[in-house]
Amino acid sequence: MALRSVTRLLSGTPKCAAVSVCRAQSTTAAAPLKVDGKVAKVPFNWRDALDLEGQLTEEEVMIRDSFRDYCQEKLMSRIVMANRHEHFHREIVSEMGELGVLGPTIKGYGCAGTSYVAYGLIAREVERVDSGYRSVMSVQSSLVMHPINAYGTEAQKEKYLPRLARGEILGCFGLTEPNHGSDPSSMETKATYNPSNGTFTISGAKTWITNSPVADIAVVWAKCEDGKVRGFILERGMKGLATPKIEGKFSLRASATGMILMDEVEVPEENLLPNVSGLAGPFGCLNNARYGIAWGALGAAEFCFHAARQYTLDRIQFGVPLARNQLMQKKMADMLTEITIGLQSCLSLGRLIDDKKATPEMISMLKRNSCGKALDVARQARDMLGGNGIADEYHIIRHVMNLEAVNTYEGTHDIHALILGRAITGLQSFTVEK
Amino acid sequence: MALRSVTRLLSGTPKCAAVSVCRAQSTTAAAPLKVDGKVAKVPFNWRDALDLEGQLTEEEVMIRDSFRDYCQEKLMSRIVMANRHEHFHREIVSEMGELGVLGPTIKGYGCAGTSYVAYGLIAREVERVDSGYRSVMSVQSSLVMHPINAYGTEAQKEKYLPRLARGEILGCFGLTEPNHGSDPSSMETKATYNPSNGTFTISGAKTWITNSPVADIAVVWAKCEDGKVRGFILERGMKGLATPKIEGKFSLRASATGMILMDEVEVPEENLLPNVSGLAGPFGCLNNARYGIAWGALGAAEFCFHAARQYTLDRIQFGVPLARNQLMQKKMADMLTEITIGLQSCLSLGRLIDDKKATPEMISMLKRNSCGKALDVARQARDMLGGNGIADEYHIIRHVMNLEAVNTYEGTHDIHALILGRAITGLQSFTVEK
Amino acid sequence: MALRSVTRLLSGTPKCAAVSVCRAQSTTAAAPLKVDGKVAKVPFNWRDALDLEGQLTEEEVMIRDSFRDYCQEKLMSRIVMANRHEHFHREIVSEMGELGVLGPTIKGYGCAGTSYVAYGLIAREVERVDSGYRSVMSVQSSLVMHPINAYGTEAQKEKYLPRLARGEILGCFGLTEPNHGSDPSSMETKATYNPSNGTFTISGAKTWITNSPVADIAVVWAKCEDGKVRGFILERGMKGLATPKIEGKFSLRASATGMILMDEVEVPEENLLPNVSGLAGPFGCLNNARYGIAWGALGAAEFCFHAARQYTLDRIQFGVPLARNQLMQKKMADMLTEITIGLQSCLSLGRLIDDKKATPEMISMLKRNSCGKALDVARQARDMLGGNGIADEYHIIRHVMNLEAVNTYEGTHDIHALILGRAITGLQSFTVEK
Amino acid sequence: MALRSVTRLLSGTPKCAAVSVCRAQSTTAAAPLKVDGKVAKVPFNWRDALDLEGQLTEEEVMIRDSFRDYCQEKLMSRIVMANRHEHFHREIVSEMGELGVLGPTIKGYGCAGTSYVAYGLIAREVERVDSGYRSVMSVQSSLVMHPINAYGTEAQKEKYLPRLARGEILGCFGLTEPNHGSDPSSMETKATYNPSNGTFTISGAKTWITNSPVADIAVVWAKCEDGKVRGFILERGMKGLATPKIEGKFSLRASATGMILMDEVEVPEENLLPNVSGLAGPFGCLNNARYGIAWGALGAAEFCFHAARQYTLDRIQFGVPLARNQLMQKKMADMLTEITIGLQSCLSLGRLIDDKKATPEMISMLKRNSCGKALDVARQARDMLGGNGIADEYHIIRHVMNLEAVNTYEGTHDIHALILGRAITGLQSFTVEK
Repeated sequence: MALRSVTRLLSGTPKCAAVSVCRAQSTTAAAPLKVDGKVAKVPFNWRDALDLEGQLTEEEVMIRDSFRDYCQEKLMSRIVMANRHEHFHREIVSEMGELGVLGPTIKGYGCAGTSYVAYGLIAREVERVDSGYRSVMSVQSSLVMHPINAYGTEAQKEKYLPRLARGEILGCFGLTEPNHGSDPSSMETKATYNPSNGTFTISGAKTWITNSPVADIAVVWAKCEDGKVRGFILERGMKGLATPKIEGKFSLRASATGMILMDEVEVPEENLLPNVSGLAGPFGCLNNARYGIAWGALGAAEFCFHAARQYTLDRIQFGVPLARNQLMQKKMADMLTEITIGLQSCLSLGRLIDDKKATPEMISMLKRNSCGKALDVARQARDMLGGNGIADEYHIIRHVMNLEAVNTYEGTHDIHALILGRAITGLQSFTVEK
Repeated sequence: MALRSVTRLLSGTPKCAAVSVCRAQSTTAAAPLKVDGKVAKVPFNWRDALDLEGQLTEEEVMIRDSFRDYCQEKLMSRIVMANRHEHFHREIVSEMGELGVLGPTIKGYGCAGTSYVAYGLIAREVERVDSGYRSVMSVQSSLVMHPINAYGTEAQKEKYLPRLARGEILGCFGLTEPNHGSDPSSMETKATYNPSNGTFTISGAKTWITNSPVADIAVVWAKCEDGKVRGFILERGMKGLATPKIEGKFSLRASATGMILMDEVEVPEENLLPNVSGLAGPFGCLNNARYGIAWGALGAAEFCFHAARQYTLDRIQFGVPLARNQLMQKKMADMLTEITIGLQSCLSLGRLIDDKKATPEMISMLKRNSCGKALDVARQARDMLGGNGIADEYHIIRHVMNLEAVNTYEGTHDIHALILGRAITGLQSFTVEK
Repeated sequence: MALRSVTRLLSGTPKCAAVSVCRAQSTTAAAPLKVDGKVAKVPFNWRDALDLEGQLTEEEVMIRDSFRDYCQEKLMSRIVMANRHEHFHREIVSEMGELGVLGPTIKGYGCAGTSYVAYGLIAREVERVDSGYRSVMSVQSSLVMHPINAYGTEAQKEKYLPRLARGEILGCFGLTEPNHGSDPSSMETKATYNPSNGTFTISGAKTWITNSPVADIAVVWAKCEDGKVRGFILERGMKGLATPKIEGKFSLRASATGMILMDEVEVPEENLLPNVSGLAGPFGCLNNARYGIAWGALGAAEFCFHAARQYTLDRIQFGVPLARNQLMQKKMADMLTEITIGLQSCLSLGRLIDDKKATPEMISMLKRNSCGKALDVARQARDMLGGNGIADEYHIIRHVMNLEAVNTYEGTHDIHALILGRAITGLQSFTVEK
Repeated sequence: MALRSVTRLLSGTPKCAAVSVCRAQSTTAAAPLKVDGKVAKVPFNWRDALDLEGQLTEEEVMIRDSFRDYCQEKLMSRIVMANRHEHFHREIVSEMGELGVLGPTIKGYGCAGTSYVAYGLIAREVERVDSGYRSVMSVQSSLVMHPINAYGTEAQKEKYLPRLARGEILGCFGLTEPNHGSDPSSMETKATYNPSNGTFTISGAKTWITNSPVADIAVVWAKCEDGKVRGFILERGMKGLATPKIEGKFSLRASATGMILMDEVEVPEENLLPNVSGLAGPFGCLNNARYGIAWGALGAAEFCFHAARQYTLDRIQFGVPLARNQLMQKKMADMLTEITIGLQSCLSLGRLIDDKKATPEMISMLKRNSCGKALDVARQARDMLGGNGIADEYHIIRHVMNLEAVNTYEGTHDIHALILGRAITGLQSFTVEK
């Protein structure tokens, strides 16, 4: 197992000579140079405007750099066609497993046991390429491995976690229902216990489920007879279980999205996650995932910023580079600022999680901020590319489309505003109840 | 010819019983009803908040209604798959020709000779369905038929206009070059006169050309030996002419977009448009097209507004329709306002054009305003649909993608800001020249 | 009376040679000139970008020009000190009375009987100078004269309207209470009928009342014993009536604002406005006033736009006028656009009112749009003036402060959003009731 | 001197029992409580949403708390009238001197020698009350004491710093000229050396100078005969020196602002700051001040957020607190987010300065971000207060007006965008030079 763990990552060296544009980012800047005995001016690094690098541990930097190499070398080359043709490359999950980035914060069971900051850095690197790929990874790590680790039995952990960590099997997460998006407490999926044979019969439908058409297992949330929501591990092949793909999706096209249809699926009771009941279970998972999204969305934003900058430097109009125009520079100044202060806050949040001082509201705040701002950045970047901005070869239009979903899923921008509003005022305004 | 002209439109009745949601819009509201001898309160019509209807002529209303029927009955049913698979339905052009909406403001040559307001209403109806379809129509009407009519010889008009009006042949417009988007004065395409045989040899490349892969003719702008830009009518089949399609486009997918590559294409001098030289030629076309875009983009915005309204009325969350939420209502209030005041201004502009009192800056102002606001409306509407908002069946994500191009082409949002800035201050700020 | 009426306005000529900057606006542009037998290009007029001028009647233009002269010559010179020292010039009301602009749409009773469009133009001209002055005028015209004219007896009309129209007496309007801003239905002010002597006893408090400290009469709304709201005309000097000024106001400082405190004020029953009951009464007044605000706020915005334009043309930085910068031109393009489309819509609304086709929602929409946009314009303009932008001599900071109140009073931006939201959806979201 | 130093601050205890609302902020929350042997849920603290508190040193917290007490107890009570009547309380400078917060980062010369983070916390606390007061303090600390300490002789330091630190004398900073706001390189003020008597003769005018009408000394920047800008210490009473107050200022009214008019002022050469030449001198000062502004502006924003929250909790409309409305909660969620991520970034910047790793561009970024966002927060907060929002007793309108200046001075929002744009692209777009 150690082969795929941090140990290996730490000793790993990039194999590929084709170093991408993004690589330059890690060779940074901040140390003051001595020139003629005087301390020279510290140069400003627009790729890292508040020296995030300097606030990471050596291990975090190495994990990040190693995974960035993979993303830039192996994922960037596949993404345009994958997105154009809505093709999900299943082998990516195995590759990520090989790199040790699935369920990375989990200790044991073949997982890397990294800090939450490292988890954030991983999410940022993969979403720099594509939010669909990050979604695949988030689901596996935060919505499948996390609940098994946090709420499962020792047997469940041993059965599933190592295979999930290796990417041998892929999971999905069934919470959202066709009629219940922002309000999971109205869940209609039911689980009935059969004392005769020690199984649960589950019926219901889940929709907008990332990975569902290709997943091997599904963590599904259902309402039990006592009215409480509980989690179950379903396996592909169970009778009554179907996972049709949703067609005509113009966001996250490189990942598969579908439904989970359960028509009296019989699930052995050993597949119940016993250590949680109520919405605390799925909400715990969502918080875990949202934290990754907060980092990831800014990775996408960084790509768009960097690409728009390069495009406007290269393109000459009216005799000067587009980047020479005030209107362009103002857009880039805004991008730089929002990305920088957003990332800085994600780092602080990661440290708080690692120190067990974080709250769900903090995560809501940064999931919302990162997604909203990343969407703004991507839209501005697309605009800066003019006509070329609608061609997938330039990547940015893809990020614009992806971030629409990212801004919406796991709590829309507005829903998180109301979560924060309630935390600020002590008054809920989700419903018309007083 | 009269068969396809306004006369016929005026006498036309919708044939199809399947009247769409949008039909209700024409059966409006504003006339005060007498109840018990008292004038009853005028009801507010959220579909037409400042009574645009009451400001149209009877003829304009009839043209609009007749064409709306076509759009809702014949185009709406095709668009989802056309967009999903990037399929251009060539027959739509013929159908539009049959309806008399191609080059509608032109007098004679089989054209309808409508007002510019009617032209705007037509653009609005077709773009309510899809900006790609409106682009096809705009190119044919404003960028191909208009320059032939305005700058062409009598022979050219007679040769091309009737067939273009019927949709028998389709045209495209070659101005933008790979390295020259916002700055056409740097055009590199060259036309050299051959006195020996009375032809021009044209070489160069045009890109982002709507219709080019399927067009029968192209109005191409090239720099002549005297340094002046002139227009030429090229026909498919000319030697050295190629029109490759641009792949991987995530905007306007229902229309074909490509390049025009000209490798020493020999064009007879009778294909020169003789009555214009310099950028006044293409700019005149662009102004004509931009006027239609100003109306059209708001048609797309109206669709998004209406669809988001209906969706939030139908979808129940936390026990009430989504539409019951203040955050939703505020978005809709903003949409209503911008659409209403935008359309009112387009109407005023149309009347000014009809009265020969309009200026290019007016058109720049409203092209920019309509496109920018429509993009905002579409993005808000997409957000209101939550997860479903990324599925093409709900249409809005398609409008979001389309309007990115619409906001960019024929003068980006920023370029029109600088055009207006120059008109306001007398100082140009496009270039670094003083 | 005819001396002050439209007749006189129509024959009036500006007396003063010191023609202000704003005067240029009326000498417009739009007629196409013939040069060498060809129709010359229509010039673009940035002061009137969609030819509003051409849509006015000759009478409306004359009223507007005559009143603009007064505003620029007589009000502009007083406003800086009036605002700086919170001084209300009572004589302005008399001057306006002399010009016939108080209650201008009322027919008879010494009023001018203009169109509603003319009323809007008047509001725009006075607010071009100061929103405080426009507030004084709006209150007199829409909130005092209008209810007396619409809901009063013949005797009340004859007693009050001519003196109000001449500006001999000044009125105020008491609806808002300290605890009830956006929700007047919770009004606490009570009116009890005394059958013994045919009077009403009124007790309660009203606050944020424009003109109250200096008004001669007040139209006050109180809840009667039947639970219905009715209007009463109170006169200064009545026992138990006090009108303390509100100090420390940083908006509308050139007009006086105060409370109306009523401690068992005895009001003769002939001072009851008999022809309305319920909130329809005050809401009718508010609609009337809001219409004027919709025009007026854009007048303030126009001043800010024009002043910022001139400032940036005059001020040289880095060797060129500030106006030469893209960032400045973009702000001006936005200002131009919003002002132009806003005014065009106000004009349409005015015509609809004149034709009895307007609804309150239309007015909500444009009150909200004009105020929100004017505030944006003013803030941008202030920013363009840099440090000088905070000095009252440059006027713009005053408009910024004023427009905060204008955007709030007579329905805040958000309240009007909910009014529109209800009209769009049929669902109210003001309260937590289902 | 030790009496006023950090040592004293560290041992100081608040004397006053009347602890303000703001005090609650320091008694925070974040430590996880053990309940029944289990780690309890960490509560979310909306006053400190990412646990800034936990990232401060004990000393920084003590300095902050001690100074907060002073600000809330001694400054809040004076500010409404000071602002209303444009009255500058000179004694505040002495009080601040007594507390040791003037020039706090300077080591020696009677200064406290705190971290830059502590300096930021001080700026935040004072601007929570009023930006005018913070301006007075910033000028003294960053623009007068800093250049004397950084560029002055030992004799200058000993002569001025202790008295400035105690607040015995007050300084001002003369850079901006009437015709040169954003472009100081065009400076017209001249300094000519007189070899005969070892003096400089300085002539020129400076404007928008905080403190100038009441300052005892002025650090003035002038162009010398070699074309280089140098700094001079001028003292009140020098012949030819006048400091007229600017009247009619509607921003920062609690601080005095004026001009520095120099008509052949003779300045002894020992008043030249010898250790800097060129714009590096004033720019170094501005960077120092901008850093404080970045913190301070967010302090003002925090006040507005907290006050608007309390107002909307207290005010009942339609039967529930205003704070129960979604539209209100969304505004507060935005405020919370921007304030939190802004402060977090200021903290990181402060640590970078303390570690000598900061660059001017970082400071530009956060000065710009904090000021722009604070202005947005203040405007939203004012709106939330409805009519009461324009009354100075509620404080917010004052912050709105103040932040207009704060957003403009020491580099406008746009100028900092261009500074960042140049750092991102390597291309300047300030001027029309290529």
